[in-house]
Amino acid sequence: MNYDYVIVGAGLAGLTFARIKADEGKKILVVERRSHIGGNVYDSYNNDGILIHNYGPHIFHTKDKGVYEFLSRFTEWNDFQHRVLSFVDGNLIPMPITLENVNKLYNLNMSTEEMKDFIAKKAEKIDEIKSSRDVALSMAGQEIYEKFFENYTKKQWGVDPKDLDTSVISRIPLRYNRDTRYFTDQYQGMPKFGYTKMCESMIASKNIKIMLNTDFEEIREDIPESAQIIYTGAADAYYGYKYGRLKYRSLKFKFETYRMEEYQEAPVVNYPNDYDYTRITEFKKMTWQKSDVTTIVKEFPCDYDPDDPEADEPYYPFPTKEWKDKFALYKADMDKEKRVHFIGRLAQYRYYNMDAVVRTAIDLAKEV
Amino acid sequence: MNYDYVIVGAGLAGLTFARIKADEGKKILVVERRSHIGGNVYDSYNNDGILIHNYGPHIFHTKDKGVYEFLSRFTEWNDFQHRVLSFVDGNLIPMPITLENVNKLYNLNMSTEEMKDFIAKKAEKIDEIKSSRDVALSMAGQEIYEKFFENYTKKQWGVDPKDLDTSVISRIPLRYNRDTRYFTDQYQGMPKFGYTKMCESMIASKNIKIMLNTDFEEIREDIPESAQIIYTGAADAYYGYKYGRLKYRSLKFKFETYRMEEYQEAPVVNYPNDYDYTRITEFKKMTWQKSDVTTIVKEFPCDYDPDDPEADEPYYPFPTKEWKDKFALYKADMDKEKRVHFIGRLAQYRYYNMDAVVRTAIDLAKEV
Repeated sequence: MNYDYVIVGAGLAGLTFARIKADEGKKILVVERRSHIGGNVYDSYNNDGILIHNYGPHIFHTKDKGVYEFLSRFTEWNDFQHRVLSFVDGNLIPMPITLENVNKLYNLNMSTEEMKDFIAKKAEKIDEIKSSRDVALSMAGQEIYEKFFENYTKKQWGVDPKDLDTSVISRIPLRYNRDTRYFTDQYQGMPKFGYTKMCESMIASKNIKIMLNTDFEEIREDIPESAQIIYTGAADAYYGYKYGRLKYRSLKFKFETYRMEEYQEAPVVNYPNDYDYTRITEFKKMTWQKSDVTTIVKEFPCDYDPDDPEADEPYYPFPTKEWKDKFALYKADMDKEKRVHFIGRLAQYRYYNMDAVVRTAIDLAKEV
Repeated sequence: MNYDYVIVGAGLAGLTFARIKADEGKKILVVERRSHIGGNVYDSYNNDGILIHNYGPHIFHTKDKGVYEFLSRFTEWNDFQHRVLSFVDGNLIPMPITLENVNKLYNLNMSTEEMKDFIAKKAEKIDEIKSSRDVALSMAGQEIYEKFFENYTKKQWGVDPKDLDTSVISRIPLRYNRDTRYFTDQYQGMPKFGYTKMCESMIASKNIKIMLNTDFEEIREDIPESAQIIYTGAADAYYGYKYGRLKYRSLKFKFETYRMEEYQEAPVVNYPNDYDYTRITEFKKMTWQKSDVTTIVKEFPCDYDPDDPEADEPYYPFPTKEWKDKFALYKADMDKEKRVHFIGRLAQYRYYNMDAVVRTAIDLAKEV
């Protein structure tokens, strides 16, 4: 079979590349381990008729007009603006750190100018910023760090923020106004009929063949020499774990459906200091679906473990120097490959947002 | 790639065969022209959040316990019992021909015994039953034939029942009781979470690889000699139309969503004598989904035309001698094939119900 490109992984990276090249008349084979396309953006209706995000909530937002315009070829959007509340000291406090947040936390009624003074007094002077903890303390002080960030980060990564480099908490968004939108990117929204329908539109080309239920290893030897390979799987897997396994965090999801129209006040409520889960997402609040019932998901972070069926999806590359160094070994090998291109969160071992993934794929398609 | 079976078509025939052989440890490749599995039983949520049957209503019913038990491995069922009303002379009259039907049509209040006499008097004596028309007249008489069957059949097949052989109307179910169920098979119901979810469960095996968006012709030359082929596509296509194209009827579907909880009184309402469509199906009445809106589909039968995007799905083999004879030419060739097996509605040019398709696939799997 005469393919120009064999793409490993039918997530956003793979499908973006596939579609661009298919439109140029190239022949594409996409190979996907799972039984569906879409990767982690896959959504589907559950047994209660609610559209859920099977691999955790995905909220599209971008400053990148090119990415937005590309995806808009395949979907309409609702103009959803994401909001997050954080359950702290028994109250639901809007995130990120805004006038609304600080006033509610301290039961104050500060103005913009007053908040600037207030935060300036709280912020700690740290000479050398080494860790995520240092970032938070130096920007917002001990109290805000403890209440909103410290324990959430511990749950999320399984380690103390003082042991995480500054890539995890690189800054604390401080807004001296009342804008409680979680993201302020120019383009934001949910695909009007879901991510899966968007992905189905992306592959609606006779030049794209999709092979499901198929591991890369199963077809690896059969790829003709003439085809280029776009690999969006895990970097360590590609090289047979020759330098050892890379560390990832995973998530255990607990989906629950309730016979009520509304479960919580916001699409996402964070639980930094209570319970074992980090947050609860209510899907109807993002998709705007109407129903007498509502489905939520609780997220329990855990280490990725390929042998545990509940934790065998590698969601987050582990953001410490040790693991970045290990990845660098693989990266050196990857850079030597002539006909294999590595893109996406898993292959590049980087916590990319959706828009960054699409951008990488668009740029690669231009390049090759 | 070392497959034991290459299966062409991911409909019920192909997936049944695939799963049985996968469970036996065989390696399977399923090749599917469309971008989804399930063939014509495929269902999906539309843009109004209603689960629809994209290729027209499918109601599962069978007397075959083996078929029911096989499919029950992959789905639960609701215990839906199908009911059909026929819009005749401005009234909605329950189908098939029962006491309820005849009493309502004639505004009578007959008993079982009275109905027997009544129908016996109406039935026409026809010496040689040659056509579908003859069947109907001889069983139920002119009036019932005209009101319920004649025009419906004309719309459905585009020809007069007097020109259709007795396979189309082989009998008119006459019930001298008040059982208005459309089917009286022992097993009946809808897959509780839809046909697509059932099909997804069927392919949940590491031994089954699925290739979407791929015509048989595109991989035909690449199938290794060692693999057996299960072909569920159209018979004429397999042979490059060497004896000419077979005739099929197709359907144009018009889906409509209304802001009301209920559109009509029954899952299906037939319109034998009014409008250009044959029937209206309301999906919520079969799936038991709850919603403030409801989606219906109107079916407009038409001839299959591969060049008309609205009529390019071959739904029904054409039931006349001329076309059966033409199929027989292909059948003679098919019978000579050593490693290709032909099953399903398209390959066997027979209007199989779902349960018959599954049965054929089970039996073939036992045989090869």
